[in-house]
Amino acid sequence: MLTPAMATTRGLETPASLLENLMRVRATTVSLCDPLEPEDCVVQSAPETSPAKWHLAHTTWFFETFVLQPFVSGYKSFQDEFVLLFNSYYESVGSFYPRKDRGLLTRPSFASILDYRRHVDSELAALLGDTSHSHAQDIAARCTLGLHHEQQHQELLLTDIKHLFWCNPLRPTYRERSPAPAGVAADIEWLAYPAGVYDTGHGGCGFAFDNEIPRHRSYVEPFRIASRPVSNGEFLEFLEDGGYSEPTLWLSDGWQTVCKRSWSAPLYWEERDKTWWQFSLSGMHEINQAEPVCHVSYYEADAFARWAGKRLPTETEWEIAASEHQQGGNFFDNSRLHPQPCSGETSFFGDVWQWTASAYSPYPGYRAQRGALGEYNGKFMINQQVLRGGSCVTSRSHIRSSYRNFFYPHERWQFKGLRLAGA
Amino acid sequence: MLTPAMATTRGLETPASLLENLMRVRATTVSLCDPLEPEDCVVQSAPETSPAKWHLAHTTWFFETFVLQPFVSGYKSFQDEFVLLFNSYYESVGSFYPRKDRGLLTRPSFASILDYRRHVDSELAALLGDTSHSHAQDIAARCTLGLHHEQQHQELLLTDIKHLFWCNPLRPTYRERSPAPAGVAADIEWLAYPAGVYDTGHGGCGFAFDNEIPRHRSYVEPFRIASRPVSNGEFLEFLEDGGYSEPTLWLSDGWQTVCKRSWSAPLYWEERDKTWWQFSLSGMHEINQAEPVCHVSYYEADAFARWAGKRLPTETEWEIAASEHQQGGNFFDNSRLHPQPCSGETSFFGDVWQWTASAYSPYPGYRAQRGALGEYNGKFMINQQVLRGGSCVTSRSHIRSSYRNFFYPHERWQFKGLRLAGA
Amino acid sequence: MLTPAMATTRGLETPASLLENLMRVRATTVSLCDPLEPEDCVVQSAPETSPAKWHLAHTTWFFETFVLQPFVSGYKSFQDEFVLLFNSYYESVGSFYPRKDRGLLTRPSFASILDYRRHVDSELAALLGDTSHSHAQDIAARCTLGLHHEQQHQELLLTDIKHLFWCNPLRPTYRERSPAPAGVAADIEWLAYPAGVYDTGHGGCGFAFDNEIPRHRSYVEPFRIASRPVSNGEFLEFLEDGGYSEPTLWLSDGWQTVCKRSWSAPLYWEERDKTWWQFSLSGMHEINQAEPVCHVSYYEADAFARWAGKRLPTETEWEIAASEHQQGGNFFDNSRLHPQPCSGETSFFGDVWQWTASAYSPYPGYRAQRGALGEYNGKFMINQQVLRGGSCVTSRSHIRSSYRNFFYPHERWQFKGLRLAGA
Amino acid sequence: MLTPAMATTRGLETPASLLENLMRVRATTVSLCDPLEPEDCVVQSAPETSPAKWHLAHTTWFFETFVLQPFVSGYKSFQDEFVLLFNSYYESVGSFYPRKDRGLLTRPSFASILDYRRHVDSELAALLGDTSHSHAQDIAARCTLGLHHEQQHQELLLTDIKHLFWCNPLRPTYRERSPAPAGVAADIEWLAYPAGVYDTGHGGCGFAFDNEIPRHRSYVEPFRIASRPVSNGEFLEFLEDGGYSEPTLWLSDGWQTVCKRSWSAPLYWEERDKTWWQFSLSGMHEINQAEPVCHVSYYEADAFARWAGKRLPTETEWEIAASEHQQGGNFFDNSRLHPQPCSGETSFFGDVWQWTASAYSPYPGYRAQRGALGEYNGKFMINQQVLRGGSCVTSRSHIRSSYRNFFYPHERWQFKGLRLAGA
Repeated sequence: MLTPAMATTRGLETPASLLENLMRVRATTVSLCDPLEPEDCVVQSAPETSPAKWHLAHTTWFFETFVLQPFVSGYKSFQDEFVLLFNSYYESVGSFYPRKDRGLLTRPSFASILDYRRHVDSELAALLGDTSHSHAQDIAARCTLGLHHEQQHQELLLTDIKHLFWCNPLRPTYRERSPAPAGVAADIEWLAYPAGVYDTGHGGCGFAFDNEIPRHRSYVEPFRIASRPVSNGEFLEFLEDGGYSEPTLWLSDGWQTVCKRSWSAPLYWEERDKTWWQFSLSGMHEINQAEPVCHVSYYEADAFARWAGKRLPTETEWEIAASEHQQGGNFFDNSRLHPQPCSGETSFFGDVWQWTASAYSPYPGYRAQRGALGEYNGKFMINQQVLRGGSCVTSRSHIRSSYRNFFYPHERWQFKGLRLAGA
Repeated sequence: MLTPAMATTRGLETPASLLENLMRVRATTVSLCDPLEPEDCVVQSAPETSPAKWHLAHTTWFFETFVLQPFVSGYKSFQDEFVLLFNSYYESVGSFYPRKDRGLLTRPSFASILDYRRHVDSELAALLGDTSHSHAQDIAARCTLGLHHEQQHQELLLTDIKHLFWCNPLRPTYRERSPAPAGVAADIEWLAYPAGVYDTGHGGCGFAFDNEIPRHRSYVEPFRIASRPVSNGEFLEFLEDGGYSEPTLWLSDGWQTVCKRSWSAPLYWEERDKTWWQFSLSGMHEINQAEPVCHVSYYEADAFARWAGKRLPTETEWEIAASEHQQGGNFFDNSRLHPQPCSGETSFFGDVWQWTASAYSPYPGYRAQRGALGEYNGKFMINQQVLRGGSCVTSRSHIRSSYRNFFYPHERWQFKGLRLAGA
Repeated sequence: MLTPAMATTRGLETPASLLENLMRVRATTVSLCDPLEPEDCVVQSAPETSPAKWHLAHTTWFFETFVLQPFVSGYKSFQDEFVLLFNSYYESVGSFYPRKDRGLLTRPSFASILDYRRHVDSELAALLGDTSHSHAQDIAARCTLGLHHEQQHQELLLTDIKHLFWCNPLRPTYRERSPAPAGVAADIEWLAYPAGVYDTGHGGCGFAFDNEIPRHRSYVEPFRIASRPVSNGEFLEFLEDGGYSEPTLWLSDGWQTVCKRSWSAPLYWEERDKTWWQFSLSGMHEINQAEPVCHVSYYEADAFARWAGKRLPTETEWEIAASEHQQGGNFFDNSRLHPQPCSGETSFFGDVWQWTASAYSPYPGYRAQRGALGEYNGKFMINQQVLRGGSCVTSRSHIRSSYRNFFYPHERWQFKGLRLAGA
Repeated sequence: MLTPAMATTRGLETPASLLENLMRVRATTVSLCDPLEPEDCVVQSAPETSPAKWHLAHTTWFFETFVLQPFVSGYKSFQDEFVLLFNSYYESVGSFYPRKDRGLLTRPSFASILDYRRHVDSELAALLGDTSHSHAQDIAARCTLGLHHEQQHQELLLTDIKHLFWCNPLRPTYRERSPAPAGVAADIEWLAYPAGVYDTGHGGCGFAFDNEIPRHRSYVEPFRIASRPVSNGEFLEFLEDGGYSEPTLWLSDGWQTVCKRSWSAPLYWEERDKTWWQFSLSGMHEINQAEPVCHVSYYEADAFARWAGKRLPTETEWEIAASEHQQGGNFFDNSRLHPQPCSGETSFFGDVWQWTASAYSPYPGYRAQRGALGEYNGKFMINQQVLRGGSCVTSRSHIRSSYRNFFYPHERWQFKGLRLAGA
C-alpha cells in the first residue's frame, strides 16, 4: 500500500518528531478560535467559505477516515453521522453534506467538536506511538499529509473569518495589531534569466503534494521578473487612472465580472471621504501604499499587468527565480496576519499569494493516485490558475518553491496579490 | 398624537397591569432560547426565517425605536449600529440590513443582546412607571402594540428553529415530549349558516391590529363549514390517491411550484420504509392520523379541498362561525408545540393556522396610519392569503376571532393547515 | 353535454350568423399579420409573450381540439405534433411545449400555419353548416367560446408585437398613425353611490366566461369613483414629485420590484433631453398629457392612488358604476391602437384596462367546469388582480361590464391604466 | 499602420486573386441560408448561439468597420444603427447590442441584410481593385483577416442552425444526405515521439491568426498519440460501463456539470427503445459506431480518457504529430456536414475538433495588437481549452496544423470530439 497523495516520503521525520509536530499543528488550529465567540464559529458567509467549526471537524475527520479507520483494528467512528457531515468532497468516501449549507450545522456544538478532536488526537498518539505497527510507514506518511492538510485549513479558517467579519457592519476585530508605518515601497529590481531548458517541480527530500511532481523539464524563453510584489501605491495609480472602467485592459470574462459585481477596487477596500481604507483582521485602517496589494482576483492582476505594460509570470518562471531566493517572508508564524510593507529586499515568499499566468494543470507524467486520497488535487485541474509563494496567513513550514496553490480567477477572499514579469 | 397601528385603545389595562404583562412576555421570549446553544441562535436557515438572536434584538429595537426614542427625553440609543441592524423593514426609520443576510451577524453576541434587552426593559419599566408622563396614554398604547409584536416573534422564533433543526441531518430536539396516542380524528360536523348581511372585523374593547378594523358588513351566501381542521389521515388519503401528481387538482401557480420544488408531501414529512414520519420540535415520530395536517402551503390546501369536492372558507365565513366557538384550543401556553389529535369537539382556534380563500386586502374604510408604524400591516396587502385561528405555537392571549394572519401561498414553514367549507 | 367554460348560452346567435361572425373574427386575426415580416411572427421577446405565429396556431388548435376532434366523426388531426406544440396549458389534453421556448419554433413556417388555419376553418364551416348535427347546440356554444378566445389572442398578438418592437433599437412601426393633438385631460367628476346590497356578475343573455358568473350579491359601503382614468399629465406629476423613489408610497412587494427592475417610469416611456417620449405601435412620440396613462403595473397604479390620497376601486364598485355608463369607448375597431385623450365624457370602457383593488378569485358559488375547458379560467385564481373595461386593442364586441381580465401585479406589457376611487 | 490581428502577411495573394477568393467566400455564406426559411434565420436558440441573419450582418459589419470606414475616403455607413446592432464584442468600437438578445432583432429583415451585404461587397470590390491605393497592403491584409473571420462564422452558422433545429420537436432537416454505412472503426495505431525541444506555432508563409504566433520552442517528454479520434462505438462502451454515473472519473467541475444538467450522453444523442439515435443536419439517424464521437464537452472527453487509462494530448503534442499528417480530412467542402466513419488511415484534420489538455493562453512573446482588432483573440485567453484540427463544417482552406480553436469546457454545440494520448 503506497502513500497516496504526496510526492515523496524520503527524508520523513522520526515517529516521535512527527507526533510532536502533528500535535503542535493540531493545537494551533484550536487556538485560532480563541478570539472567537461560539457564534462566530458556526456561520458561513459565502458558498466558498466554511465555518470555523467545520474546519475543526473536517481536519479531524480526515485523520479519522484516512488514518484511524484503515489502520486501527476495530476502530469505531466517534459519531457515525460525522462521516457524512464533515466529508468535504471525497466521492469515494460516500455522500457528503452540501457545501453551501455547512453554515446550517449549529449542531454538533463547538464543545462537541473539541471532544471529537481530543478523541482523535488521543487515538493518533497511540497509533503513532506503536512503532512496530506493520503499516508504520504508511501511517507516518498519511499523518504527514494530514498535517499539511490541517495547515491549509488553518489558512482557510483565517480567510473565512476575515470574510465573515467584513460582512458585519460592526466590523469586528480578530486580533489587535499596531499597523506598520505608512510609506512607499522600495523600487522594483528586475531579475533576468536566460533562455534554456529548466527543471522545476518537487524533486528533493521532504513532503510535497502530488501536484508538485514529477520534477520535469521546460524550455523557457529569456525573461525578467520583479524583485517584489506590486504595492498598494502602484495599484492605486491603476485605479485612479480609470483602470476599473477601461474594458480594453481586461480579459473578456474579467470585464464581465467587473460589470456584474460592480467592482471598483480590491476586496476589503472602502472609500471614505476620498481616502481608501482597508479591512484587515485588526479592523479598518487607511491604505498603506508600501504594502503589497492584496485580495485581488486574477482578472485584476492581469488587467494591472496589461496597464503597466508587463505581464504575469508563468509558474515555471516564478519557480526558477524563487528557487534562488528562499529566505525571509512574512508568514502566519509572525502573527501579523496582514502583508508587511515592501522593503528593498528581493522576496518571493509570504505576504501575498502571487497569481501566475499558468492554468492549473498536471505536470507531464502526473498520475492521480488510486483511492480516495487521489481526489485531493487532480480533480481540480481545470478552470483555475496557479498561485505561488504563500501569504501572511500561511505557515512557514507549509511552503516551498514548488508549492502550487490554485483558485478560480474571480475569487478574491484569499490573500492574493501579484508580481510582474516581462521580456 | 394618535396610536398608530391598532384598532382601538378602549379597555386597555392599567399601567401596572400592562407593565407586569409586558415583562412576563419579554421574559418568555428569552426563555425560548433556554434549550438552545449560542450557535443555534445565530443561524438563518432560509431567507424567510430569522435567527433567534435577531428576534430577541428586533423586538427590543421595536420598543427602543417606537417608545423610548420618542418619549424618553434625551434617550441615547444603546448602540447606534443596532438601529440599522435590527430594523426589519421600516423604510421610514432609515435603511436596514439585508433580510437574507441576518444570519451573518455573529456579533453582537447572544450575551450582548441580553444586555440590550435588560437595558431596554429597565428603561421601559421606568417610563411606564411614570404615570404622570404627558404621553402616558400613547406610551401605554405603543407598549401594548409592542407586546403583541413580541408575541408574533415568539411564534416565529419557534417556527424558525424548527426549520433550522430540520436542515440538520442530526435532527436535534428542541423539547422532549411524549407524543399523543395514535388514533383517528372524530368525524367532521358541518355547521350551517344562512345567507345574509353579517358584521365582521374587530369592534369591541381590547387590542386589535389595524388590519382588523373597521368592523364592517358583508353579504354572505348560505354556507357550511367543518367543525374541525383536516386531519393527517384525510390528507394521507389525498396523497395516496395521487394528489401530488394530478395537475387538474391544482391552481396553475401551485402545480408549477409542486414541479419546481418536487413536493410530494407536506413539509417535514419523510417516508421511511413506506411509513410516513414527521419532524416536530421533539424530533421525528410517525404520523399520527388523528392530528390536524400541518405545514401545508395554500396550494396544497386548495388542491386538497378540490379533491375532496369542497372549498376553503372565506375569511368572513370563518370569522362568522369562529365567533360562536371561542372556547378551547391548543396554544403555546400548553407547552406541546405540536398539533393535538382532533377530538369530537368543535374547534376553531389553536393547533394550526387555517388557510382561507381570501386574499389579504384592506377592509372597506381601512386607512394605513401615519408614520413608521403605518408600515406594520398595510404594505403587505398584496399576493398573500389570510390565515385564521392561531396555532400550537401562538400565545392564547394573542388570538381572537378577528385576527388576520397572512403569508404567501407557497410558504409552509409556519404551522398551517386547513378547514373545509361548502355550499 | 353542457357548455363548459361559459356562463350562459341563452340568446346565442343562429348558426348562420355565428358562422359569419366566426369567420370574420378568424380573418381578422390573420390580417393582424399584414404589416409584419415572417421574422416578426416567430420571435418571443419575453417569457410572458408569444410569437404572432403561435397565436395564429394556438387559436386554431383550440377549435381543432375542442370542436373538431369531439364532434367530427373520424376527424384526423392536421398534423399530430401540433397537439403538443400549440397546446398552451391544458394539462388534461396532454403535455405541452414549454411556454418560454415558443420562440424557438421556426417551423412550422408561417405559410404552414396559414394552411392549418384554412383547413380548420373549412372543417368548422362544414360542421356549423350541419344544422342537424346531434350536438349542434354544443358545437355552437364551443364555437362561440372559441370566437371569444380568438379575440383575446388578437389583443395579445398586438401587445406582444409592441413589446418585440420595443426591444429593437430600430423601433419599427406597426401602423402609421397621426397622433392625437396634445392637450390636457378634462377634469375628473366623482360619481357617488350609496351603501347597499348590489348585484354584480353576468346574469343576462349572451356570452360570458365562467368567471363572470354566478350573478351574486355584495354589500358595498358608500363610494365615489372617477369619471375617467388617470391621465399621463397626472401621472407625470407623481413621477416628478419623486413617486418612484419614495418607498412609503408603495406596497412592499411593489417597492422591491421598483428597486430590482430599476423602474422610474411606465413601460415604453423614455426620457430624451428632459422630455418624456412614449413608444406606441406607430413608433416614438412625445407624451400626450391628455391621454390615459398606460402600461403601468398594479404596483404603480396603487402607489399613484396612495400619493393622490385616493384608492383603486374594487371590481364590484367598478361594475356597479360601469353598468350605468356603457356607451362609447376607443376599441380595436377604431384602428388607433393607442389610448385617446380623455374628453369630458364619463367613460368606463376602452383605451386602457383598469386595475382594481380586487384579487382575482371565484365568485360565491363558482364551480370550475368539468373537462379540459374547465382549465380556462379557474386555475388562475391566485396571485393576480382583476382589471376591467377593455383597451384600445380589445374588440368592442368582446367587452361587457361584467368582463374580468386578470394579470400578475408586476406585469406591464398589456394596455393597463387605472381609475381612482374614494370614500 | 500594421496589419493587426494576424501573424504574417508574407506570401499573401495578388489583389485579384484575393478579391476572387473573398467574393467566393462571401457568396458561400449567403448560400448557407438557401435551405432556410426567413424565420429560421432570426431566432437564437441559446445565449452562446447567434441567428443566421446576425452572422450575415456581423461579417459584413466587420468589413465595413475595419476596411471601408478607415480606407474609403468619405465612406458613409450603410445604416448608422448597424454599428451598434452588429458589433459582436469590440469594446473599442463602442457599445454593442446585448449578445443574449440577438434573437429579438426581427428587423432589419433578411432582405435588408442581403442589401447590406451587396452594398459592402460592391465597395470592397472597388477598393481592392484600386491597386494604387496608398494603403493597398493594409487593405489586403485586413480583407484576408475578414475572409477568415467570415469562414469562422460560416461554421458557427451551421452549428447554430443545428442547435435551433434540435430544439424543435419537428426535428427539421437542413440537408438531405444518405448516411454512411454502419460499421466499426479501424483499430487505433499509436504514433510515438521522443523527448526533445520542438518548435510549434505558425512560422511559414500564408495567413495565420495572432494567437498562433510566435513560433516558439517547447520541451516535450516522450509521448504517443492515437492515429484517429475516439469513435462512437468506443464512447458507447464508456457510457454503458456507467461512465456518466461514476464521479471518480470526472473533474470536479465536470461532475457538477453532469449532475446539474442531467447529462447522460453526448449532445444530440437520444435513446429510443434501448437504441441510441443522433440528430444531424440531415435529421435523426441511428448511431454509427464507426464515426468519431461528436458534441462532447471537455469534461466528457477528459472523463473518457481517464476511463480508458489514457489522457488528452497537449496542444503542442497534437501539433507535432499533426504537422506530419496533413493530408485528407472531411471538411465543409465535402458537403456531408457530419463526421465520417474512421477508416484505417491516420487522420488529424476534419470531422471533429479535438479537445486538448491545454488551457488557451498566450504563446511566449505573444502581444495583443493595438486597436480594436487586438480584441480578436487575446482577450479570451482564460477559462477556455484549446481544440485542434477543424471539423466537418470547417472550410478546408481555413485550417492548418497551427490553428487554435478555443471553447469553454462545458460547451458541446460545436462539432467536438477527442483523440487519446499516453506515455
